Amino acid sequence: MVNTPHITLDDELESLSAQIAQMGGLAEEQVANALNAMSRRDSALAERTIKNDDQINLLQQEIDAASVQTLALRQPMGRDLREIMGPIKIASDLERIGDLAKNVAKRALVLNSQEPVGLTRGLVRMGRQALVQLKDVLDAYTQRDVSAAMEVWNQDEDIDELYNSLLREFLTYMMEDPRTIGLCTHLLFIAKNLERIGDHATKIAETVYFIQEGHYMTEDRPKGAPEDFAGVRPSSGSDNQGE
Amino acid sequence: MVNTPHITLDDELESLSAQIAQMGGLAEEQVANALNAMSRRDSALAERTIKNDDQINLLQQEIDAASVQTLALRQPMGRDLREIMGPIKIASDLERIGDLAKNVAKRALVLNSQEPVGLTRGLVRMGRQALVQLKDVLDAYTQRDVSAAMEVWNQDEDIDELYNSLLREFLTYMMEDPRTIGLCTHLLFIAKNLERIGDHATKIAETVYFIQEGHYMTEDRPKGAPEDFAGVRPSSGSDNQGE
Repeated sequence: MVNTPHITLDDELESLSAQIAQMGGLAEEQVANALNAMSRRDSALAERTIKNDDQINLLQQEIDAASVQTLALRQPMGRDLREIMGPIKIASDLERIGDLAKNVAKRALVLNSQEPVGLTRGLVRMGRQALVQLKDVLDAYTQRDVSAAMEVWNQDEDIDELYNSLLREFLTYMMEDPRTIGLCTHLLFIAKNLERIGDHATKIAETVYFIQEGHYMTEDRPKGAPEDFAGVRPSSGSDNQGE
Repeated sequence: MVNTPHITLDDELESLSAQIAQMGGLAEEQVANALNAMSRRDSALAERTIKNDDQINLLQQEIDAASVQTLALRQPMGRDLREIMGPIKIASDLERIGDLAKNVAKRALVLNSQEPVGLTRGLVRMGRQALVQLKDVLDAYTQRDVSAAMEVWNQDEDIDELYNSLLREFLTYMMEDPRTIGLCTHLLFIAKNLERIGDHATKIAETVYFIQEGHYMTEDRPKGAPEDFAGVRPSSGSDNQGE
């Protein structure tokens, strides 16, 4: 980035936003590809998804470098400062989403050779809901639209409920037929990965709030009912955020 | 932070390092407490651990704010710039480690009422190894000691192997006695949380490298053998990093 009088701070902020939009688009694509690899048993697609994760990591490094350079050279304050901190945080969440998508693709490779028809449908449905959350929150960021971001934030509860009911479903399979335990364990971890993608979308929503409002949100993320499939509810009311 | 002529950039960098050391100490304490809550079936300790996570999150916000202020006001370059980016990244890893410890404590609450003697021993052993990694990498950061950081980085492989063997162990319990499936699923997730704590220690090691050497490491983190308990090895050679 050449620091000439013709390039303003606003130009640099727009450039950062564009880089986030690009990285976000790539993350969405990776999540969609991982889900398709799983639902279509497409091992070649799974392998491509795994390889493409490097692109996302490189983008994060570029965004980090650009943000830091702008911070150091422009001495922004207030809102402008938050407009640079925002991309640093969002890029970190997008990088993790990319990682999670890659890991779903890896587990899809294992499943593709083994999975009895139907076990992944619920997972794919949950994953597509997490993908919608990701698209919506990236739109909210582009528009700096706090109420759209808060819709995403509130809907995380739905994903957590889907997650909990899928867990219960897999547990019943395992109990009915111990031969499915190894496979169902993969499904459990895939479900957890997808739930975490939803969580990261919620974190991005919180960053949109922060950029616009100038302070951090104070409420905890809404969670569905805690996993109580061991037959005992945890005595603390809240759930396993960020696990 | 008052920006007077008497406070130098070096003072501010030292202050940031001290804040990281404080946050690191808190994260270590949380991990240790979660493991003790599990091994001693101490539900009161588990509850305290869950509450104390807020402190870690507040420290991250303070470190973010202090880093950004220093960046904006001092226009640091080269090594000094990395000395400020480092704490931002490390604070993010420590915040996630705190989250993971809190989630281990939550699951410990569920286990404490149910767990047959002995199931958590392997978990606690693995957790203590992850805790040693965390202490060692925080020391490496304090000393800016790249070779110490690289030792931590390389030893992540041992934690991954412990993780894989614990998974296999839990699978055998589940297959032998379907009544343990719900419980063992909690143990699986605890093991995954502990493995991720180890991963974050490795990320901190990479940040120490970055601060000292001035560029990112290019090698992928070493991983143990991929989870193949479904009886099929994933066809890609690498493992589920960052899951």
